[in-house]
Amino acid sequence: MTVVAILGTGLIGCSIGLNLKKIYKSDSKKSNDLVIRGFDKYGDVLKKAKSIGAIDKITSSPAQAIARADLIILATPILAMKPLIEEISESISSKSIITDTGSTKGEIHRWMNEYLPDHTGFVGSHPMAGKTDTGPEAASEDLFAGGRWVVSPRVNSSEAAIATVQNLAKQCGATVMTMDPDEHDSYVAAISHLPMMAATALFSVVRASEAWPELSLLAAGGFRDTTRLAASDRDMSYDITSTNAANIVHWINRYIAGLSELRDRIDSGDAMNEDLYKLIAATQWEYDLFRNGKVGREEKGLSDTRDMEPGMLDFLAGGWVREKLTQLNKDSENRSSQSDLERLQRRDI
Amino acid sequence: MTVVAILGTGLIGCSIGLNLKKIYKSDSKKSNDLVIRGFDKYGDVLKKAKSIGAIDKITSSPAQAIARADLIILATPILAMKPLIEEISESISSKSIITDTGSTKGEIHRWMNEYLPDHTGFVGSHPMAGKTDTGPEAASEDLFAGGRWVVSPRVNSSEAAIATVQNLAKQCGATVMTMDPDEHDSYVAAISHLPMMAATALFSVVRASEAWPELSLLAAGGFRDTTRLAASDRDMSYDITSTNAANIVHWINRYIAGLSELRDRIDSGDAMNEDLYKLIAATQWEYDLFRNGKVGREEKGLSDTRDMEPGMLDFLAGGWVREKLTQLNKDSENRSSQSDLERLQRRDI
Repeated sequence: MTVVAILGTGLIGCSIGLNLKKIYKSDSKKSNDLVIRGFDKYGDVLKKAKSIGAIDKITSSPAQAIARADLIILATPILAMKPLIEEISESISSKSIITDTGSTKGEIHRWMNEYLPDHTGFVGSHPMAGKTDTGPEAASEDLFAGGRWVVSPRVNSSEAAIATVQNLAKQCGATVMTMDPDEHDSYVAAISHLPMMAATALFSVVRASEAWPELSLLAAGGFRDTTRLAASDRDMSYDITSTNAANIVHWINRYIAGLSELRDRIDSGDAMNEDLYKLIAATQWEYDLFRNGKVGREEKGLSDTRDMEPGMLDFLAGGWVREKLTQLNKDSENRSSQSDLERLQRRDI
Repeated sequence: MTVVAILGTGLIGCSIGLNLKKIYKSDSKKSNDLVIRGFDKYGDVLKKAKSIGAIDKITSSPAQAIARADLIILATPILAMKPLIEEISESISSKSIITDTGSTKGEIHRWMNEYLPDHTGFVGSHPMAGKTDTGPEAASEDLFAGGRWVVSPRVNSSEAAIATVQNLAKQCGATVMTMDPDEHDSYVAAISHLPMMAATALFSVVRASEAWPELSLLAAGGFRDTTRLAASDRDMSYDITSTNAANIVHWINRYIAGLSELRDRIDSGDAMNEDLYKLIAATQWEYDLFRNGKVGREEKGLSDTRDMEPGMLDFLAGGWVREKLTQLNKDSENRSSQSDLERLQRRDI
């Protein structure tokens, strides 16, 4: 009999529960061999988790949920984890494997080091999944499929604990990336938390405009996509900013510098703005590579021109830029070959 | 017989052509009554436009395309329109109705005022549609369905010209919004061009990181959505920035101010960060309204509490903020009620 305790039965906790059920059901020898106990501070969330089949048993306290559990999954909001870790540290079995699903890892590891320094069953984790809807109603077996799942062991994590958490991620359909908690936090600041803050600030400044009634009518798919992360759960966003502040501030500053550079190029007032065109064209080119799956280490091979499509060589040789600038230049010569006086005369005819 | 000339047979020009064909075909009396002539500076684009049925006849010059045309549609990149307007001004019939599809309107109106000041058939327009793919291959009858289509007459536009362009937009399935060209440019700077620049700068700064191989692997849907507009066609982006620079610079500056404020709140180092939570929560609340269709003038009725759901009243009364802060405060009291010494002792047991 495998006993799993899920503390925090929202979107992530319930989606893991549903996956565990599926995994055990698919193996006829183990199909009756799993019990998932759930705990959540909100009773209605807990009932809903049971009704959708994500947990088997409702418990009335974290201690009751974790008693003799083989695997404990902390899936609450991040800031709720500190008191929860302190609470379960009183009764946790030394044999339990314990993981969490927090979007930041450094602080959670520090809390674990504070309250459970000698427990060899702890391995942090971060399933990089999410959607705008939250709660058990939004949970699904497919939530993690095709995504990344970061696994962050600590120095004293047992081999068995690391393998269990990595397996959990794989069985949920995710690709495992193992990394140090602080390394994780610096990376997600750039590709997850910065976009969240960028979307929040973008929506916020446009929403604050006197013209919002007109702007909201005109806003199309581009505005909606770029601002979509402003819909992120407010508590999750707050908890992320408060446990990864230094990295997020660093990336917002880099972003402001990037925006300032772009603004200065736009503001140059130059009719033939080579620097601006280069920046826009290079970004589009790099984005297309990213969009077409050129990611990770293999992407470093790009300087090998044998792999390049003709369009890329053209770009690298300045072809795009040259073509555009030639066109702009020609237009400008055409215009200046005809004086304002001539044009005015022509119009009078 | 209705003669339409489409100058520039890319995504937008061809999608309008396909819509005109559909409109005429659906009316049995008019089904053979439409000829669409196309011109494009790229011969292969023009052939493709004919092969997908977006135009009937390929022409070899703008002058040939527009001769005795009832309706002329300029659907080239913005900066290509100035020389094109100058060129057609030599031969355009005073009876032709002429419109354009540019993403900015002020400059195009100024070029029209320069080269065709007395033509009463000109009405500017901007179908607010687009997708990442470009060219005739990406054209479709559905491109404009459900979107907005801005119509910008000038002072001397004839009633017939205004009605024709408005009808074209409606028949393509779009909702017409009629506005002044400079008003249009100030609005789209906020909800279209700023998001485009925000996405470009965001992708650009993250892409420039030494850690890009890892970041690109970790990047999930949130990063992809927020940066999607970095894939916008480079020439279109450049032309937009060069014909709406002042408005875009204004909005980038407002955005930088918004980001700076958010950064300062994150950076305050306060464990109970009421200002930060309020900003995040208020933005999420407002975003949810927007996402659920609360747009336009009717949205101003929000201060009428009779329409409010309980959650909104709760928010306005500070409920969310109070609940979260109470929780944070409780956690912090729990922690301080137990001295560090006590905790250390407990751990030694």
